[in-house]
Amino acid sequence: MQENEWLAVWRLIEPVFRAGETYAFSPEILEDEARKVWLATPTATYVAKDDEGNILGTYFIKPNQPGLGSHVCNCGYIVGEQARGQGVAALMCEHSQVEARRLGFRAMQYNLVVATNEGAVRLWQRLGFEIVGRLPGAFKHSRFGYVDAFVMYKQLA
Amino acid sequence: MQENEWLAVWRLIEPVFRAGETYAFSPEILEDEARKVWLATPTATYVAKDDEGNILGTYFIKPNQPGLGSHVCNCGYIVGEQARGQGVAALMCEHSQVEARRLGFRAMQYNLVVATNEGAVRLWQRLGFEIVGRLPGAFKHSRFGYVDAFVMYKQLA
Repeated sequence: MQENEWLAVWRLIEPVFRAGETYAFSPEILEDEARKVWLATPTATYVAKDDEGNILGTYFIKPNQPGLGSHVCNCGYIVGEQARGQGVAALMCEHSQVEARRLGFRAMQYNLVVATNEGAVRLWQRLGFEIVGRLPGAFKHSRFGYVDAFVMYKQLA
Repeated sequence: MQENEWLAVWRLIEPVFRAGETYAFSPEILEDEARKVWLATPTATYVAKDDEGNILGTYFIKPNQPGLGSHVCNCGYIVGEQARGQGVAALMCEHSQVEARRLGFRAMQYNLVVATNEGAVRLWQRLGFEIVGRLPGAFKHSRFGYVDAFVMYKQLA
């Protein structure tokens, strides 16, 4: 992702944060904070584009813990509303595993996969991730209230 | 904990970070960074003292995730070398659960309990925490290399 693509990326990810159904970030998150977590803090941020250069999705990759836990990475993926159901999330997840290995990470961890986000859970499982833990009531879903979340993990090395 | 107790707390926690056996923070962490993670960022930081006012241990409490995951807290505890084996960790953990409820948290999560730290794992289990997940090779132990870590969780509400 290029710096000058931020506004397009923000337009794509903002409705997902506002919905409060899949990401823990506050639904009232400011653009500035979102830019920090999606673009400034991560090791790298990517966009998925179609042949015309339209942005279909985006993901970031970063160490999940400091120092002695920094060989395990964490990623967040978002597909734009117009591009759902076309396999963009799967392509980004596969791409992220290649990138993670290239960047020297030995494993990938998702810390808070919302249990009601069943499509995502199944997709990550299909792409080699295991549910290693269930966190009871760890996510406050904007429609369903407190729901469980999964810790998912895949070794890459 | 009072601001002016930082140096005493730093002297207590520094050797634990330097050892690289239980916390993910880099063993080369600078005092400044340590102050940020232990004192500045957390919701609250505490010290355990004996009757003479000597600091025996310290812990912090903070939200484990932003926004929709911020009702689950995370704590880190360290007992000074001179005060080990006297039940200080258990007292701090119990105290932290009371404080967590008072601060409105609904659950407590430890993200990276190093599997080789067997005493800690058993203690947290005795105090009501469950191992909800095992993260293969997620911690790079300074003596043993890559070892597993546990996600531990306790509902408070």
